[in-house]
This record gives sequence, C-alpha cells and structure tokens, in this order.
Amino acid sequence: MTDAAAPSSRTTVRRGANRAVYEMERVRSILDAGVIAHVGVTTDDGPIVLPMAYGLREVADGEHEILIHGAVANAMMRAGESLDICLTVTIVDGLVVARTPFHNSMNYRSVVVRGTATAIREPDAKLAALRVINDHVAPIWDTARPPSEVDVKKTLVLAVPLVEASAKVRDGDPVDDEADMDGPHWAGVVPLTSTWGDPIPASDLRVPADVPAPVRELGGTNAHPR
Amino acid sequence: MTDAAAPSSRTTVRRGANRAVYEMERVRSILDAGVIAHVGVTTDDGPIVLPMAYGLREVADGEHEILIHGAVANAMMRAGESLDICLTVTIVDGLVVARTPFHNSMNYRSVVVRGTATAIREPDAKLAALRVINDHVAPIWDTARPPSEVDVKKTLVLAVPLVEASAKVRDGDPVDDEADMDGPHWAGVVPLTSTWGDPIPASDLRVPADVPAPVRELGGTNAHPR
Repeated sequence: MTDAAAPSSRTTVRRGANRAVYEMERVRSILDAGVIAHVGVTTDDGPIVLPMAYGLREVADGEHEILIHGAVANAMMRAGESLDICLTVTIVDGLVVARTPFHNSMNYRSVVVRGTATAIREPDAKLAALRVINDHVAPIWDTARPPSEVDVKKTLVLAVPLVEASAKVRDGDPVDDEADMDGPHWAGVVPLTSTWGDPIPASDLRVPADVPAPVRELGGTNAHPR
Repeated sequence: MTDAAAPSSRTTVRRGANRAVYEMERVRSILDAGVIAHVGVTTDDGPIVLPMAYGLREVADGEHEILIHGAVANAMMRAGESLDICLTVTIVDGLVVARTPFHNSMNYRSVVVRGTATAIREPDAKLAALRVINDHVAPIWDTARPPSEVDVKKTLVLAVPLVEASAKVRDGDPVDDEADMDGPHWAGVVPLTSTWGDPIPASDLRVPADVPAPVRELGGTNAHPR
C-alpha cells in the first residue's frame, strides 16, 4: 500500500493563501452589503461605540481600505494623528428558533475590522474619499450640488486598512442536541429582510425635480443583498 | 414693568427631571425596538466591538438594566469580575438625500449605554436573566424544552445598569442651506424597513409540530416598530 503524497509546503501555503483570499472576499462582500458600521475606540473613561456611515475602496492590487468621516470622526481624533479602532458591520438575517433556548440564535453576516485610522488631509484626496463614503449605499454624489472647499475643510475623513479583518456568518437551520430531536418542539427560522422603500420627496422642495435614477433604483430593493 | 418670575431652583430641577424622564423613555423605546447591540470593550491590544443579543428589564421602580450573554461575554470577562463596556443599539430608518452631499445623512434611532457589566452568578437569577434576553425579540422561551442546569452553567450572563444612557434620533427631511434651496436638485428620503418573514420549519424536523403562536405572530411584522 502506498502512502498518499504528503502535502508539500508549497501546497500548504497555496491552500493557506486560498483560504485567506476566500476570507477577504467574504469580508468585502459583507462590507459591500452593510449600511452602517459600529466603530469602537478607547477613551480615557472607557470604550465608546458609535454608529457611522462608511465606504470601501481598493487602494492597490488586492489591497482595500475602509473610510469613515464626520463630526464623530472629529471627536474620535481629538487625541492625535492616528487612532486604534475596531469597526464592526453586522447584518441580521433571521431569528433561529431551536428546540431549546440554549440553541436559539440569530442568522447573521458580520465583519470585524481592527486597525489604525489615519486622517486624509490633502483636499483632493479627501474629496475622493468623501465620494466613496457618500456613494456606498447608492451613487448619489453626481445627483447633487458638489461640495464646496469649505464643506470639505469642515469634514474629517479617516482611512483604516482592510488587513486585520475577519468575517463570521451564521446561516440555516437551528442545530440542536440529538437528545432533543424527537421531542415535540417546533424548530425553524424567521427570516429578517430589510428593504428600501419608494423615495419620498422633501416637503420643502421648491422646484419640481425628478427623482435621480440611482435613488429611484434603490427603492424596492433589498438593503443587504447577498 | 414687572420682571417675569425667575425659575426657582425647584422648577429648574423639575424641568430637568422631566427631561431626564423623557430621555430615559426614549432610550427604552429604542432598546425595545432594537434586535442586536454592538458591545465595545477595551483590551490589551485595542478596542473590540462585537454584535450581541440583549434584553432589558426593570429591576426596581424606574430602574432598568441591560442583559447580555454567551461565549462572547465569556471572552470579554476573562479579565475579571467586572468590565467597562459601551453598548450601542442603532436602527437605520432611511437614507437622507440632500441637495448637496455635505448634508446627506441617514434617519436613525440610536442609544449608547456606558457602564460596568457584572456577572450574574446565582443559578435562578441567571435563568431569569437568560429568559429576558431570549424573549427580547419574541416570547419563545415557553415554546421550547427548558434549559438544563448544565446549559445554564455553561453560559455567562452580564448585567449593565441603564443609567449612563443617551438616545440620538434623526428623522424627517434633509436640512440644506438656504443657498441651495432654489437649486435644481431633488431632495428627499428613501425609507428603510426591516420585516420578519414567514417562519420556515427546520428541514430536519422529525415530528409534525405547529409553529408556536409567538413565532407565527412575529411573521410579517416590522422588526423595529416605533
């Protein structure tokens, strides 16, 4: 009987590399489907977690970064030029009802990103970054009056490399103990779906204006597509 | 001309107390409507933010606490008997499309709770707390096989007093600068709604069992009612 060939170190590395690539693709697809992130920082009187809009872009071949902005970023950055953060995006997909509460759960897609956020200072780079955040949900940058230099000056934009990132996903049926499988209890899943509704014009619109195409196309769609 | 009576210190305290009561009611109604929280803690290598199920209960007249549990809580508590945390719940209600990107926003309801989480150790108290978390979305505890002593032993349950809590809500139309109000751009809101779907029985159900009433009643409802 011949032994099966042991994995070579090249194969092992390739498998590791493939797993890493697959994981980063999973991370990016969940970040693409999310709408807000919860961003945590450490302060002198404890941790603080705030909800924030975000964007994602490629910065070099295969390398990505997450962008966040706003007054919240201002408050976070008071400490200095860079900031250790944790940025988490979670999409809840369903309530998992098991045969016993210990195995109840939720179906979800989540990503945790850890890293150092640094400020983008150069005005043109800032503008480009703001556009990425603005257009994360729908490409509406071009449908509006472009920001002025003053607008851009007032906004702090931070970038976090997408390197230390992991995805965690739960999907499917409850998983119960064998001892409970012949019991009388129902088990299953109640799916949760988030949907964009039809655009509602502002009540103070002074001019008759058509709903821009990217806004119109958002209406009726799943907010967190797989 | 007589001066209007200056607010007495009692009046000021009453107004302050009313505002505080109103704020705590807002906090509680948002926590009631949320499904998951993002919980942040400080670790030796930076902040970490994880999504968690939670529950809310009254512990004394007007006093409330938030409960969280699970393996995640285990990891968080490795450091010791108590833990400084920040727990944030956010419900996104819409995309706010302004006449310029600087005023784009989201409509949302959010609560930030800061405090010290302490473990609930006594088995009966633990069980009661687990029921509150389990039944936060729907009262399904009674529809299943009750947890065993072993189940309860394996779970760490933490309580956080609902004291240092604030709500932040944005609702309604975009708010633009007067200078943009006569421009040609559309403005408005795209509402976001999350809905529970119809319950789906587990594919490995061995016994014909009816969908429990609380699960059936969840189906088709708004996940984050106001």
